[in-house]
Amino acid sequence: MAIEGRGEPARLGEGPPSRVVIEGVKPEIDAAQFPIKRTIGEEVVVAADIFAEGHDLLSAVVKHRAAGSKTWHETPMSPLVNDRWSASFRVESIGRHEYTIEAWADRFRTWLRDLGKKVDAGQDVASELLEGAELVRQAAGRAKGPEADWLNGRAGVLRGREDQAARVQAALDPQLAAAMAMFPDRTGSRTYERTLGITVERERARYGAWYEMFPRSAAREPGKHGTLRDLEDLLPYVASMGFDVLYLPPIHPIGRSFRKGPNNTLEARPEDPGSPWAIGSEQGGHKDILPELGTFADFDRLVKAARDVGIEIALDIAFQASPDHPYVREHPEWFRHRPDGSIKYAENPPKKYQDIYPIDFESKDWRALWNELRDVFLFWLDRGVKIFRVDNPHTKPFPFWDWVIAEVQARDPEVIFLSEAFTRPKVMRRLAKGGFTQSYSYFTWRNTKVELTEYFTELTQTDSAEIMRPNLFANTPDILHEYLQYGGRAAFQARLVLAATLGATYGIYGPPFELCVGQALRHGSEEYLDSEKYQVRHWNRDDPASLRDYVARVNAIRRENPALHHDRNLRFFHCDNDQILFYGKITPDLSNMILVAVNLDPHHVHSGWVRLPLAELGLPTGHGESFQVHELLGDARYLWNGESNFVILDPASSPAQIFRVRRKIHSEKDFDYYD
Amino acid sequence: MAIEGRGEPARLGEGPPSRVVIEGVKPEIDAAQFPIKRTIGEEVVVAADIFAEGHDLLSAVVKHRAAGSKTWHETPMSPLVNDRWSASFRVESIGRHEYTIEAWADRFRTWLRDLGKKVDAGQDVASELLEGAELVRQAAGRAKGPEADWLNGRAGVLRGREDQAARVQAALDPQLAAAMAMFPDRTGSRTYERTLGITVERERARYGAWYEMFPRSAAREPGKHGTLRDLEDLLPYVASMGFDVLYLPPIHPIGRSFRKGPNNTLEARPEDPGSPWAIGSEQGGHKDILPELGTFADFDRLVKAARDVGIEIALDIAFQASPDHPYVREHPEWFRHRPDGSIKYAENPPKKYQDIYPIDFESKDWRALWNELRDVFLFWLDRGVKIFRVDNPHTKPFPFWDWVIAEVQARDPEVIFLSEAFTRPKVMRRLAKGGFTQSYSYFTWRNTKVELTEYFTELTQTDSAEIMRPNLFANTPDILHEYLQYGGRAAFQARLVLAATLGATYGIYGPPFELCVGQALRHGSEEYLDSEKYQVRHWNRDDPASLRDYVARVNAIRRENPALHHDRNLRFFHCDNDQILFYGKITPDLSNMILVAVNLDPHHVHSGWVRLPLAELGLPTGHGESFQVHELLGDARYLWNGESNFVILDPASSPAQIFRVRRKIHSEKDFDYYD
Repeated sequence: MAIEGRGEPARLGEGPPSRVVIEGVKPEIDAAQFPIKRTIGEEVVVAADIFAEGHDLLSAVVKHRAAGSKTWHETPMSPLVNDRWSASFRVESIGRHEYTIEAWADRFRTWLRDLGKKVDAGQDVASELLEGAELVRQAAGRAKGPEADWLNGRAGVLRGREDQAARVQAALDPQLAAAMAMFPDRTGSRTYERTLGITVERERARYGAWYEMFPRSAAREPGKHGTLRDLEDLLPYVASMGFDVLYLPPIHPIGRSFRKGPNNTLEARPEDPGSPWAIGSEQGGHKDILPELGTFADFDRLVKAARDVGIEIALDIAFQASPDHPYVREHPEWFRHRPDGSIKYAENPPKKYQDIYPIDFESKDWRALWNELRDVFLFWLDRGVKIFRVDNPHTKPFPFWDWVIAEVQARDPEVIFLSEAFTRPKVMRRLAKGGFTQSYSYFTWRNTKVELTEYFTELTQTDSAEIMRPNLFANTPDILHEYLQYGGRAAFQARLVLAATLGATYGIYGPPFELCVGQALRHGSEEYLDSEKYQVRHWNRDDPASLRDYVARVNAIRRENPALHHDRNLRFFHCDNDQILFYGKITPDLSNMILVAVNLDPHHVHSGWVRLPLAELGLPTGHGESFQVHELLGDARYLWNGESNFVILDPASSPAQIFRVRRKIHSEKDFDYYD
Repeated sequence: MAIEGRGEPARLGEGPPSRVVIEGVKPEIDAAQFPIKRTIGEEVVVAADIFAEGHDLLSAVVKHRAAGSKTWHETPMSPLVNDRWSASFRVESIGRHEYTIEAWADRFRTWLRDLGKKVDAGQDVASELLEGAELVRQAAGRAKGPEADWLNGRAGVLRGREDQAARVQAALDPQLAAAMAMFPDRTGSRTYERTLGITVERERARYGAWYEMFPRSAAREPGKHGTLRDLEDLLPYVASMGFDVLYLPPIHPIGRSFRKGPNNTLEARPEDPGSPWAIGSEQGGHKDILPELGTFADFDRLVKAARDVGIEIALDIAFQASPDHPYVREHPEWFRHRPDGSIKYAENPPKKYQDIYPIDFESKDWRALWNELRDVFLFWLDRGVKIFRVDNPHTKPFPFWDWVIAEVQARDPEVIFLSEAFTRPKVMRRLAKGGFTQSYSYFTWRNTKVELTEYFTELTQTDSAEIMRPNLFANTPDILHEYLQYGGRAAFQARLVLAATLGATYGIYGPPFELCVGQALRHGSEEYLDSEKYQVRHWNRDDPASLRDYVARVNAIRRENPALHHDRNLRFFHCDNDQILFYGKITPDLSNMILVAVNLDPHHVHSGWVRLPLAELGLPTGHGESFQVHELLGDARYLWNGESNFVILDPASSPAQIFRVRRKIHSEKDFDYYD
């Protein structure tokens, strides 16, 4: 039993409650209400305050296992300072894992320490040796076979007739300590009161480059509505830039009622295609494909062809309906109603969105509704789609997401959910805790050195990194930031490198991105002029001014450098120029060390001195000792020397440099004839 | 039902789970495992992140009650920024209290907000008024009598035949909003998943001045062993200095075996009295009084006489036994044994403490042992003692303290426990969490400006302040800090003022403190020379050099100024001289404002400019506007002006100044004939 200090007298149980305290466990999210997130093979570092009264030595282990397994794996914890202990383990399979901590007062190690002190002080230890013999004998009882025999033998020596010095030597023998550690006496141990969860996902949950594209604009000929077959033809283009995920806005039939015209005008002409997010018409709903785009056969071909060039198709799931959606006819009870019986369209008073009916998640028929929405995911999962970008999840109840993500991942734990929630920080965080694999972020609105440093320190160095994986989109069909509107080609390059190296997962919305399209609907708006959201566009993907090759180079650098496949290893370094952001990502074994310098001012050349903590990075600190940095975008090599080194970044060529540090520099001693 | 985001598919329950999230609750200690601490009448400020998806307005209340009561009191919470909400309440009775949070999406307030926006935009709201009428009608169903009638009447107006403008006016009527707030629709509300505890104690738990004194040295004549009757005669002396608590080291029979001589020598002469902490002899144990001190009748007289002069007697409870303690004969199983059957004395290898047998709290007979130790507290409680200073609790298991404190406070919630744990921070904190009312602190070893500022910021401005109340002893029989050894009279004055004003509760060990006794056993030791721990001393309490009057003045200032009765209101202010510590304590209504400047260098005069945030403190910020500060130790008055003011502190008179700010300064406008 545990007596907790709750102020009420507690009944005394069978044995005395454990003396050991385990508290301040990290990571632990909301008293273990939510699991942390990892991908397969990743490390989990667990730390806790562990102590008891008095001076006994403690031993502690982190226990972890795949959920459902009956066997715990144990990793011994090491004391740090101030009663803090730590250990780490790797998660080696996809799915749910769990961990906790067990700690106990270690009688043998305490006895051994005290024996040593007494021996050092020249005290008689006859009685102590008898006590030790008893501890060893008990351990033998927990052991089996030859180990039990060996321990019993040792116990015999300790309490035997040899002289005290010989018996002390036997007691202090490290082999005895090692054997005793195998059969510890855990009487009175404490197991932490909560079991903590880990959601382990596949690598793509953590690392990947996304490309967003409207199929409607995939046609080879101007003026035609693009199809899934056209999109298939563009796969080599996307693959040549090195993307891992091709994300498509909704491909479902589009409503006719209150359809929006170009540039979000209220009156659509008959030929206007409408917004893909106004889902549902007499042609079908969330489980159907817009006929103009093609057939299910075309879709299946696309998924397969993409897979063949190493690209996964991601679909957009937007749970809302146009007034023409079959749900409206078949399940009017899934929507909210006015007193006159009509269905309520979406509003943000005084704004009205008459082309959209929001779904009532608290409908009387909510159980059937939730099941149907889950089935939308399962439907596309059955067609081979394992990545879903979820539209506006922050306007639907959290418990729905908690439930539906768990349901879908129970069917297939490889499914990835990206939360498109541009909303308040705690709402975004709650969606992440509830199960979303990845989240859109505020990256688009973080453009200065202070903004980027503060935001990415929070994202990668706090508890946030345990639960929320940002997917850094440099632009989206909804967000053309002023930095891109007014910064020209260099701004696109800078934001690309920032997204691709600050984040293990990032994305661009193309072709507008690689074609450096910067024209907004009007000054002060972040909407694109002639947005693909409301019309078919035709893009010149072969424009010589395209950043296509630059994007390809950046993505190749990402693939070649494992340091860039993680978020938590981000570290900012000093640069004396406030327009230059300087940071690095380094693998734990220091074998892959990437440094990035970005000139945030797209208009002017900037230079500065960047500073590295050489000793920590295992770089030569001696005067005159150099190391090589290989600039990977331009394929140039520099010798750097000492803490501070010089960089100069010209937006006319590339506002960013990505350095791989090569630690070893040859000296005359490497020369064949030196010796 | 709640679907928690634990990664497993959750079964759907009766109704849809609540959309509302409540997280990041403060104060909450270790997932509500431990209660926070307050004294009667104190405020509890509760804050939490509260939000739901979408744009609905939320309402939230903090609910609190005395444990055992069936009725919750509710306090409406107010939104701050970033989805943070807050409310506060007062605890008005001693004992256990509890609190939690309930929050819900407020349909009426959301409707009202949206109605207002639509009306402002000139939209037709006929349908909206019908919706509102229905909400009001439902509220009438939750109300009774005239309120129900009134609400039904309002509903009738909203859906009635008056023109829309009149019905809108009726809807926006603040009286309707107020009535609706009384009968809220809490459908789908969320109650925070944990109920949090508050231990509410009497004022002395938070605020008091302690005086520690050895009864053995209370005799009027030199060479005689002092008695409880002698101590009674000294009560006026203690009272004249303004102390609230008189704390006595153990008063029990003292063991003979391995008794320590003066200055902790191993060989005691027959006339040496031994250490009061070597408890137990053939004369009795923890429930007995050393015959040299007197009888139970004397003790009862002392308790009563002290009470008559406003002083409470505090006893020292040290759970350990001399080899002569009756427990050793009667309950040998309560101690640890060597293999040869002898009882183990205390050790910290290679040091041996043969005069002390530690108690084995994990003894086979632990239940009887724990009950007996609890009965020690109850025994003295029955004799009128309600304050216990517990010796070395950090060498006994935490679960014992959790249990025994709860048991004793269940008998009498007025009992105060002071933890004498000078040990590692997390161990001290755990004792506090487990129920100790107060704790010794590291104050004695914090002597510089940086040390004091950092430590007291932690003690008063972090979670620590919710659970741990420091009792700032300026010296103890074990700790004569070098600052006092080498700093002379000014050092004693400075430490007194620091203790008495940094802490709502503080103490001194006298007469050595007020007599400025600074001689240590040897250089490098914190032990007193000729310590009372091992011998009877005789003190000249009438020494003209005594700080008695200074102490009396400081304690009088404490009593007169309620700002000094609290810890959490401590605030450090800037002073440009690093030897001057400048800080303040202010009541929430700003009616009592105390500023303290202490020269930490006992050897030299120091002066400096101290800086105050005038606007925050409600002080005049205008050029040429003055305010008065009344220096209470020297009874001098100064006019201060502007942010920065000058102080000079001479250790030869007083190294400290305590200012009371008097906000109002007269001007010519106050003069009778001005108008």
